[in-house]
Amino acid sequence: MNNKRILTTAAVGALSLGTIVGLSLAQPSFAEQGTSARATAPQAAAPAAVRALPQMPFLPLRLAEKAATTALADCLRQGFPVTATVVNEDGITIVVLRGDGASAASTDASKGKAVASAGFRSPSDALGARAAADPGLLQVPGFVILGGGLPISSGGKVVAAIGVGGAPSGAIDKTCAQAGINAITPSL
Amino acid sequence: MNNKRILTTAAVGALSLGTIVGLSLAQPSFAEQGTSARATAPQAAAPAAVRALPQMPFLPLRLAEKAATTALADCLRQGFPVTATVVNEDGITIVVLRGDGASAASTDASKGKAVASAGFRSPSDALGARAAADPGLLQVPGFVILGGGLPISSGGKVVAAIGVGGAPSGAIDKTCAQAGINAITPSL
Amino acid sequence: MNNKRILTTAAVGALSLGTIVGLSLAQPSFAEQGTSARATAPQAAAPAAVRALPQMPFLPLRLAEKAATTALADCLRQGFPVTATVVNEDGITIVVLRGDGASAASTDASKGKAVASAGFRSPSDALGARAAADPGLLQVPGFVILGGGLPISSGGKVVAAIGVGGAPSGAIDKTCAQAGINAITPSL
Amino acid sequence: MNNKRILTTAAVGALSLGTIVGLSLAQPSFAEQGTSARATAPQAAAPAAVRALPQMPFLPLRLAEKAATTALADCLRQGFPVTATVVNEDGITIVVLRGDGASAASTDASKGKAVASAGFRSPSDALGARAAADPGLLQVPGFVILGGGLPISSGGKVVAAIGVGGAPSGAIDKTCAQAGINAITPSL
Amino acid sequence: MNNKRILTTAAVGALSLGTIVGLSLAQPSFAEQGTSARATAPQAAAPAAVRALPQMPFLPLRLAEKAATTALADCLRQGFPVTATVVNEDGITIVVLRGDGASAASTDASKGKAVASAGFRSPSDALGARAAADPGLLQVPGFVILGGGLPISSGGKVVAAIGVGGAPSGAIDKTCAQAGINAITPSL
Amino acid sequence: MNNKRILTTAAVGALSLGTIVGLSLAQPSFAEQGTSARATAPQAAAPAAVRALPQMPFLPLRLAEKAATTALADCLRQGFPVTATVVNEDGITIVVLRGDGASAASTDASKGKAVASAGFRSPSDALGARAAADPGLLQVPGFVILGGGLPISSGGKVVAAIGVGGAPSGAIDKTCAQAGINAITPSL
Amino acid sequence: MNNKRILTTAAVGALSLGTIVGLSLAQPSFAEQGTSARATAPQAAAPAAVRALPQMPFLPLRLAEKAATTALADCLRQGFPVTATVVNEDGITIVVLRGDGASAASTDASKGKAVASAGFRSPSDALGARAAADPGLLQVPGFVILGGGLPISSGGKVVAAIGVGGAPSGAIDKTCAQAGINAITPSL
Amino acid sequence: MNNKRILTTAAVGALSLGTIVGLSLAQPSFAEQGTSARATAPQAAAPAAVRALPQMPFLPLRLAEKAATTALADCLRQGFPVTATVVNEDGITIVVLRGDGASAASTDASKGKAVASAGFRSPSDALGARAAADPGLLQVPGFVILGGGLPISSGGKVVAAIGVGGAPSGAIDKTCAQAGINAITPSL
Repeated sequence: MNNKRILTTAAVGALSLGTIVGLSLAQPSFAEQGTSARATAPQAAAPAAVRALPQMPFLPLRLAEKAATTALADCLRQGFPVTATVVNEDGITIVVLRGDGASAASTDASKGKAVASAGFRSPSDALGARAAADPGLLQVPGFVILGGGLPISSGGKVVAAIGVGGAPSGAIDKTCAQAGINAITPSL
Repeated sequence: MNNKRILTTAAVGALSLGTIVGLSLAQPSFAEQGTSARATAPQAAAPAAVRALPQMPFLPLRLAEKAATTALADCLRQGFPVTATVVNEDGITIVVLRGDGASAASTDASKGKAVASAGFRSPSDALGARAAADPGLLQVPGFVILGGGLPISSGGKVVAAIGVGGAPSGAIDKTCAQAGINAITPSL
Repeated sequence: MNNKRILTTAAVGALSLGTIVGLSLAQPSFAEQGTSARATAPQAAAPAAVRALPQMPFLPLRLAEKAATTALADCLRQGFPVTATVVNEDGITIVVLRGDGASAASTDASKGKAVASAGFRSPSDALGARAAADPGLLQVPGFVILGGGLPISSGGKVVAAIGVGGAPSGAIDKTCAQAGINAITPSL
Repeated sequence: MNNKRILTTAAVGALSLGTIVGLSLAQPSFAEQGTSARATAPQAAAPAAVRALPQMPFLPLRLAEKAATTALADCLRQGFPVTATVVNEDGITIVVLRGDGASAASTDASKGKAVASAGFRSPSDALGARAAADPGLLQVPGFVILGGGLPISSGGKVVAAIGVGGAPSGAIDKTCAQAGINAITPSL
Repeated sequence: MNNKRILTTAAVGALSLGTIVGLSLAQPSFAEQGTSARATAPQAAAPAAVRALPQMPFLPLRLAEKAATTALADCLRQGFPVTATVVNEDGITIVVLRGDGASAASTDASKGKAVASAGFRSPSDALGARAAADPGLLQVPGFVILGGGLPISSGGKVVAAIGVGGAPSGAIDKTCAQAGINAITPSL
Repeated sequence: MNNKRILTTAAVGALSLGTIVGLSLAQPSFAEQGTSARATAPQAAAPAAVRALPQMPFLPLRLAEKAATTALADCLRQGFPVTATVVNEDGITIVVLRGDGASAASTDASKGKAVASAGFRSPSDALGARAAADPGLLQVPGFVILGGGLPISSGGKVVAAIGVGGAPSGAIDKTCAQAGINAITPSL
Repeated sequence: MNNKRILTTAAVGALSLGTIVGLSLAQPSFAEQGTSARATAPQAAAPAAVRALPQMPFLPLRLAEKAATTALADCLRQGFPVTATVVNEDGITIVVLRGDGASAASTDASKGKAVASAGFRSPSDALGARAAADPGLLQVPGFVILGGGLPISSGGKVVAAIGVGGAPSGAIDKTCAQAGINAITPSL
Repeated sequence: MNNKRILTTAAVGALSLGTIVGLSLAQPSFAEQGTSARATAPQAAAPAAVRALPQMPFLPLRLAEKAATTALADCLRQGFPVTATVVNEDGITIVVLRGDGASAASTDASKGKAVASAGFRSPSDALGARAAADPGLLQVPGFVILGGGLPISSGGKVVAAIGVGGAPSGAIDKTCAQAGINAITPSL
């Protein structure tokens, strides 16, 4: 029984359970419209080949949006309109939600906090606390090491990060970010 | 009867019409936590002073998210995972939703299309068609003049813009963007 | 009958139509010249639709220019040529005035101070004082947290910000910025 | 009668004629507040030494603002809110005025047009027309070679440039820019 | 037999077959050195939780380096020192190899070609051919749509991309890139 | 005797003394080759019109190159290959000379030091010493507040700045920069 | 007779002429394919002329890749997936190897550490330790002064630099970087 | 006779030919001032170790400055003040000389032309001519493919490049650049 067969079985099980693996990986073949790029098509053909490569978990939009929505609502409940941003493991944006009344800079800050959290697998305020000893943390492109960014982990691995910006302090931003993560923890 | 009182009355009317102006404008007084920055507080105190300034309509997060969600679903129904971005009149992000399987570049492209549409009050593909005669359109910072960006207007004025990226062609991206706008047209 | 009363009357007319949008919101329909984009046209057609969206106050050019001119004059009276920049709530430039003899860097600095003040709803020097504890403030794109930036508020809400750069110290820059705001306070 | 004395006389004459040369060159000694940096002080001490260097004309803020204000009014009279930017010979901003309702992108575009006009001593639309043969014009940092930018010359030399953005076409932007220059031509 | 168990079995099988899946996902918990961040530790604890999220295939360093090395050698055999870059699905660099004598710009170009190929799931020269009709392709951040970039697919899905730069023409660069992909095709 | 006539006389005197004022202001009319842009032509026509505008001194290339060459030689005599950069009052480069063996980063650093010195009319190390109290100095675009940058003044006004980078300490860089200024002081 | 022997012979010829330019310096004549740009051609013609210019040593890809591979393996042995980057004396990338599981930010950080080490001929952590006194080190473009970057020297001269990022601390990153250098020390 | 000995001999030969390798490679040990970083010291110790690495020719400052000075003078003789920039093989600046009256943009353009010429081993205008077929040439970072840039070759290899900007046409800029190269050809 080779590795491919085991993985094939696993994938089939995953699909029968209604996960969105199949769909989420469907990618349009941008320049070659002749070859069908429709999301439904690749599911049948893909399994065998895909399995030859290692896999990594990712946070689907559905969960990322839920975390961001919850974080936003949590801060609004405290009276603070904020922006919540969720990025993937590479620091690429999955979701941005800017609450009405949150500043443009809150958008930049929430992104930078999320990028820092994903990039160094660490809460952004912990990085801020380290900056006195390690000022080079201020130089990593895209980082904003203010409180309010938290990595999102699954199985002990960072798969994404959330950043919140716009509340009167980074400590408050962080509580909202944590609320966002809590909302999706059962799915992680 | 002075100017302030007239304006106060107008604002009350606006509020009685169920707008969410009060909440949406609540801004945290970032550096001065002593003065309450809570969203619920300014509503009572604000009316008189705010009214001395002219006002402009803005697209609230609720509608921006509805447009983006609809655009994403419309493309997914056609088999294409995409990213949908909504920016405000200044080109500042309100919402980003990246569908599972949409590339990182689709995020950049959807943003650039929205920024171009808001910036020049024009569908982004119309700008693309003009580029042969006006190559300088390629130089405006933040613009991506591929099809898929559309301004969002209310009362004949551009208040925001949506950009969609990731489908096999800009023409398809544009139909999804239009679907997003259609979903919120009754509220515009 | 003074200017204020005239404007009040105009505003009342606008308000009775549900907006005080007036001229300032007229936007050229960039790519579609066939449909008249003239500022005078939309006023009749817009009212009903615009009202469906929430509104936010904005600082018109007339007031922004008055604040910048006053700030510049105030610093020049003290012997210091400076640059004064006013940005809107999103950090987008409304006015820049660079005094003769003010350096190019004073232009960058005045912009960055204004952007920081609008972005975090805070005087820029207050942000500077916080940087020892929150070094991530140095990473927010576009910020310059030197003294001389002040948010411009109306009704308890930040609607814009002014930044002044070029005097021998940020403290002096700040007094000029404050003078600029004072000059328009009756209109806020 | 040596060069120094001739120039000294000229400077005195200039001052007695009320020009703002003396003031405009006063620069605050930023870091050394002990040595007076006040604009009034250098006037007495400067003449002899300054004269050892060659001189170049520059457009004072007063004229730059007049050109920008006129350009803005000219476009508004046609029904189009725009942004007008004036830069110096080095492409550094002297004045920005963004009309109410002009987009954020109009600010970027007006700046880029002015920078291109100053940088290549040419109307920006002439550069645009050349781009088919010289596509590298699209790569010069800061340039936007759309119509609406014009160099401002004095004595056959380019001393500054104006850029206008936001009207439905670059041709209209250009007429407003020209109106701005016309308003200050007697002083050039 | 639920989904979790199937996947656990698969993972165990994968490990016993010497794949590097387990290791590759090990991430150091950057800021919390107390909690062991060693790659060997998470393997035991992770399985159950990781499986709750969907998975996506990724190109491991081993294969990316093989593709880059082969591409470089293929071009060198033709007499051309080049740079080969492999990026992941998000356009993030996995491998860069700059041949002795390849220019610094070949490094930038190879990266941009790979980013474009991953971003639009298309050979970079196909995008270049489309630019006359779609000039906005020149504006997507990070793209270089010269020949020499190719997406790397597995199971019909783009998982990475390779870009080669430095040969006398993009067509030659492309043949080397294809040689690189051919070398790893059995593993895709 | 009006201002114009005095200045005309002065200009003539300047030319007869061999200064390069006339030549240095000659600007090619880039896009209109029909109208002669030759440096010799404008000299006759310019005087009257140029005089309507205020003038500012500038550091001609001849002096800027002398300062840079001297600074370079001074550091090399001490055993350190460095880069010397001279910028004008706006921070625009006039001269760069990178000594053999000086690093690429020394070029960036020397430029940043010069830009900071011109921008804030201050030695760059004085700005560095202020950064603990004013961390926002780290955010001004283009600044590098390490020792080695010095403003170049004439008649109490900053007309340019020099930056040196590459010696083992900023203090040494500064002595070389000072040597460069000393070499041209008689001409300032 | 294989390719290696041919090249060896050519190299010997080159060496006997006093250079080892050989293959590594062969550069394609990008735009002029007519003139053969093949690496084997220049070897015969080059020697005499090349010698008129001074020469500098450079780190060939073979050694750079060996250093990076060793550094990566050293960190992986300790349980930490990292990115290793080697840049040349100018800070231009020669090799990047991102271990499976290393974050995107580790790639940016490893590059920045290498660039800082090459740029200031210093371990990056030594620069970090100096930043309290010399905060301007945070402003040099491209630098990341966290531990993990080391210059690579030959004959007392810096010829390249290596940077490692992704381990839980910069100190660990540095040990891996040192291991990488140790592996090639016999060839330096 | 091993490789090291051959190389040692070659280097000795190079030194006996009076090259300035020793001096030009002297690099300050930036962070460790205790170990002498003086240029004179490494000469004795370096030979043996340096020779283990391959070598590449570089254009010393003396020649780069001569080329730039000649190019500048050649354009000035035709009546056009320009900027001349020389970069090394990696596109890093060696010399910039901006003639009095040349615009700030001419500095950017001359740099971009030189970078393009070094990067693609081609005259910049040849690249411009190719852009219609290969529009991606407009995307390579730092390139300006206008006429006026030329690679500088020695022994059939590109070792540097010169770019000239500011004359009324790229064709004129190119003649000046060629004049600059001609002046140093005997030394190449």
